[in-house]
Amino acid sequence: MTDALLIRITCPSNQVAHQIGDTAVEKRLAACANIEGPVSSTYLWKGVVEQAFEHVLWLKSVTACWAELEALVIELHPYDVPAMVALPCTEVLGPFADWLHENTKAPAN
Amino acid sequence: MTDALLIRITCPSNQVAHQIGDTAVEKRLAACANIEGPVSSTYLWKGVVEQAFEHVLWLKSVTACWAELEALVIELHPYDVPAMVALPCTEVLGPFADWLHENTKAPAN
Amino acid sequence: MTDALLIRITCPSNQVAHQIGDTAVEKRLAACANIEGPVSSTYLWKGVVEQAFEHVLWLKSVTACWAELEALVIELHPYDVPAMVALPCTEVLGPFADWLHENTKAPAN
Repeated sequence: MTDALLIRITCPSNQVAHQIGDTAVEKRLAACANIEGPVSSTYLWKGVVEQAFEHVLWLKSVTACWAELEALVIELHPYDVPAMVALPCTEVLGPFADWLHENTKAPAN
Repeated sequence: MTDALLIRITCPSNQVAHQIGDTAVEKRLAACANIEGPVSSTYLWKGVVEQAFEHVLWLKSVTACWAELEALVIELHPYDVPAMVALPCTEVLGPFADWLHENTKAPAN
Repeated sequence: MTDALLIRITCPSNQVAHQIGDTAVEKRLAACANIEGPVSSTYLWKGVVEQAFEHVLWLKSVTACWAELEALVIELHPYDVPAMVALPCTEVLGPFADWLHENTKAPAN
């Protein structure tokens, strides 16, 4: 397993996704961000099935940056409970693994 | 590693994706669903390269719900072999992990 | 954990994504490919925050094919450093796991 993370965060708008994604890259907490959407979402909120349109923010980072990224999202995201998960990467293309470390605050391996 | 799962299922239409996603959330087998598409798909079917448009259904759930979700997809999905995979989550934003357990049938950790 | 992999590669265009995805499926290095986009990307390049539109290529394969897929992407992708990561799959719908092995060069488990 590598220390690379693919992080997925659903956001209420393209604007919120950009604010979080751009800030994470500028602060070198993520090496890059991709924003997709709108996507159609279904979820339970206080026991009731709700529907909404959201945008999905993907961040490519490393495990050493997770705690600061979590704090950044809690600070910037308008939801009380932002849907933020990190997926481990079992393989990463060689040069891209180096690039991830060069472009995040994480100490190089 | 957490017990959160990000599940990805490709569907032949937005309608099928909604039927499965909405049912999974209503039955509390997933806390939320996102649907993206259309996406362009290439695959081998009986040795021949085929192309089609599909919709991608993402479900956020927990490991304890996998078996029931798998059975639900086999029941509702029109393909003989639905492309359904579960990705482990190595990190989850704190309050969201609690929310996942509150909104799925899984016993709280 | 299974030996299935969900591989994510960002590409500068739909055309590049198709070239890589179709070739991977034809060479049975992936059983299927999905292409999404355009997505809006933010990234650091030589210390400067850059923005661009990209397309996301998802490949479904198995660990035994990773080395050849990595070589194929390095050969076909126009970037110096293609963003290619592989996500492990902790669960796979039963018949789909068999289908993955039947449609990739990987030896059946």
